[in-house]
Amino acid sequence: MQKVEPRTLPGFMELYPHEQVEFDRIKNIIIDTYKQYGFYPLDTPVIEHSDVLLAKAGGETEKQIYRFNKADNDLSLRFDLTVPLAKYVAKRYNELAFPFKRYQVGKVFRGERPQKGRFREFYQCDIDVIGDDELSIKYDCEVLNIIYDIFRKLNIGDFIIQINNRKILSGFFSSLNLEDKVTEILRLIDKIDKIGVSEVKNELKNLNILDNQINKIIEFINISGSNQEKIDKLKSLNIDNDKFNKGIEELENVINDLRARRVSSENYQITLTIARGLDYYTGSVFETKLKDYPNIGSVCSGGRYENLAEYYTDKKLPGVGMSIGLTRLFYQLVEANIIKTDKCSSSEIMILPMCNNYEYIYEIQDMLLNMGISVNICYLEKGLKQKMKYANKLLTKYVLIIGDDEIEKDTVILKNMYEGIQFEIPRSDLNNVKEVYLQE
Amino acid sequence: MQKVEPRTLPGFMELYPHEQVEFDRIKNIIIDTYKQYGFYPLDTPVIEHSDVLLAKAGGETEKQIYRFNKADNDLSLRFDLTVPLAKYVAKRYNELAFPFKRYQVGKVFRGERPQKGRFREFYQCDIDVIGDDELSIKYDCEVLNIIYDIFRKLNIGDFIIQINNRKILSGFFSSLNLEDKVTEILRLIDKIDKIGVSEVKNELKNLNILDNQINKIIEFINISGSNQEKIDKLKSLNIDNDKFNKGIEELENVINDLRARRVSSENYQITLTIARGLDYYTGSVFETKLKDYPNIGSVCSGGRYENLAEYYTDKKLPGVGMSIGLTRLFYQLVEANIIKTDKCSSSEIMILPMCNNYEYIYEIQDMLLNMGISVNICYLEKGLKQKMKYANKLLTKYVLIIGDDEIEKDTVILKNMYEGIQFEIPRSDLNNVKEVYLQE
Repeated sequence: MQKVEPRTLPGFMELYPHEQVEFDRIKNIIIDTYKQYGFYPLDTPVIEHSDVLLAKAGGETEKQIYRFNKADNDLSLRFDLTVPLAKYVAKRYNELAFPFKRYQVGKVFRGERPQKGRFREFYQCDIDVIGDDELSIKYDCEVLNIIYDIFRKLNIGDFIIQINNRKILSGFFSSLNLEDKVTEILRLIDKIDKIGVSEVKNELKNLNILDNQINKIIEFINISGSNQEKIDKLKSLNIDNDKFNKGIEELENVINDLRARRVSSENYQITLTIARGLDYYTGSVFETKLKDYPNIGSVCSGGRYENLAEYYTDKKLPGVGMSIGLTRLFYQLVEANIIKTDKCSSSEIMILPMCNNYEYIYEIQDMLLNMGISVNICYLEKGLKQKMKYANKLLTKYVLIIGDDEIEKDTVILKNMYEGIQFEIPRSDLNNVKEVYLQE
Repeated sequence: MQKVEPRTLPGFMELYPHEQVEFDRIKNIIIDTYKQYGFYPLDTPVIEHSDVLLAKAGGETEKQIYRFNKADNDLSLRFDLTVPLAKYVAKRYNELAFPFKRYQVGKVFRGERPQKGRFREFYQCDIDVIGDDELSIKYDCEVLNIIYDIFRKLNIGDFIIQINNRKILSGFFSSLNLEDKVTEILRLIDKIDKIGVSEVKNELKNLNILDNQINKIIEFINISGSNQEKIDKLKSLNIDNDKFNKGIEELENVINDLRARRVSSENYQITLTIARGLDYYTGSVFETKLKDYPNIGSVCSGGRYENLAEYYTDKKLPGVGMSIGLTRLFYQLVEANIIKTDKCSSSEIMILPMCNNYEYIYEIQDMLLNMGISVNICYLEKGLKQKMKYANKLLTKYVLIIGDDEIEKDTVILKNMYEGIQFEIPRSDLNNVKEVYLQE
């Protein structure tokens, strides 16, 4: 028979089994945290009507889309989880209770040019809270609290959540009569870490911005100190602009609330140069960085927007949300050696049967399963050496060897494969196997 | 602004939030059981090269496929999870440890004509064990044990796993010199419950099958009694055909093993008329039925096959597996009123803050979160009545009301919204809230 070469498309992540164990562990930490805070799961289709999905899109996004016809339908694969959420909420507006809190974890598709660390199919892990006409700023704080919880649980090193408010930026540039140049200025500010202050000054000059305006911009982005000091300095600028002052009020609100939540102040920081998506966010914006790995960039971003679903409905639906790009994050964490997958097995214990008394073996298995321990049984019809080799290849930490001798004595042999030590333990002691024998 | 109508494609399931909670609960029971038995997670791409995906397909499947071009690539969406598994195993043959046990839960796509209860995008929940050249029959038994565990945990009523062995069928028809008519005969046998024995006899006659052959066929499918009695009767047919006798041996092996596993004999049954996919399975085959809902058909099927990946590799890779079509199953369970979603909320407790002392409120939330309880806080800036209405709309069972009075007394008010009763309880008693106050 002629064979087809089994290939996977470039730009599509397909992990080894042990890597997938770790990927799923991280994914579940994220999902469990979302659920803990009472977010509803949502699971929208991968395929949608093209006109629905592309109501807003344009430019790069539209070029990257997977779009095709089937029968007479013009179809596309979703390229994010926000547009499907907007569609869902607009469609079911009358049946949903607002604020509507939902999480969605799923694959999205973008036919980008493949390059190292970029994927055409990737997981997004999103939460959003959608209000009906209005939405308390407490939800901004809850989203920040969830980011804090997740990155503590992930245990991938020190992290900092950088927080800003878009009203402060807009109001500030408005007070300088620079509204029409906000986009270019923000783009420059975003590069300040890379190109330095003096180069930013030069480029601002190229935009025909006056020296005294440039000095005010530099003064603004140089504001430093503790979070409270930054807020005080912003206030002391005495800028007479409603938006600016509303932004300070919101930011102070958020900071005070995070303090009440006992979110450690080591893990968040007002960062006035954070802007995010230039035409979407209208209030709080945030990014999350790993302190020891600045090159990875933001691993979790989000913010507050005015209107989720204006392409579908006249209803005003403000929201706040955040997203973790898990496929890319996982790739980066592995590349940077922050997570290791060489001890990720599919089961905590593997039983190696060395006799045919399966009633005894299944009893042991049931006992362990009932204790919430995952148990693989090696049914290879081979000798102990081959079975050990199999357990090793599966990265199994603990094996239970059960032969006629053990059954006669009503015991099992528990071997720690990582450390090469073993104990013979009475079956009755298996009740405490988790506490006494299985170490983390 | 011109609005686009927010539509979802027909044949694509998109649930209400409370329905999704129940869907996910069921999905997680299935996944957790797969994991308990040491199956590795696998997550292959939704999009594959068309020639890879369609190496084996043809006929109906090929017509239903979502296939399109992007740049110069001929791409298709996966239509099942077995072909991607075959690709994966063939591609990584040298790096995997065999037997390779994997589960995959994911969406697959088939552009069928839409009709009630059929979906174009649906979840499959699969497990398979793949051997390298050989695979112990114990894995057939493990798969059956997993089906048993899952349907007990799902608690959706009495179920029966029907078990057969394809070698018995093939061997039997071979002994009657009817090899060339096996397909048609099996198709007729499959209809016996619908059309009755005498109609089956007539149609067998139409196939030019002789009367004495027909009598033997009817005698064979009429074999009744307990599982052991059926095996004894099969043996007493004294048919001199190796395949037939090998099939009996395998089937007896399976039945004896299920007994050793203490799988309740109420929940499985040898059923000699079960055949499943006519050109794929070669040993054990099984279907699962809900006893009180025979019209739903099989809710979980699978079996043993000879060669997983012959389109990609010369390696002989026998396997055994099973699949649950979760989207269809969920639809049917809701339709038949077997599961209800009118009490599915996204959180166990909702806090209704009636004052601005959020430090106290967040402390209570943290306390509950740390106990593994999911906690929604209602930040609506409205009165108690509106907040209660919100909690009700979210189907929340328990609310905690916290106002200045409660904080002064260091208490909270816990209200069971379903039963309309409430208690004021000291904060210190919240440690036992799960055991004492939250009923199932």
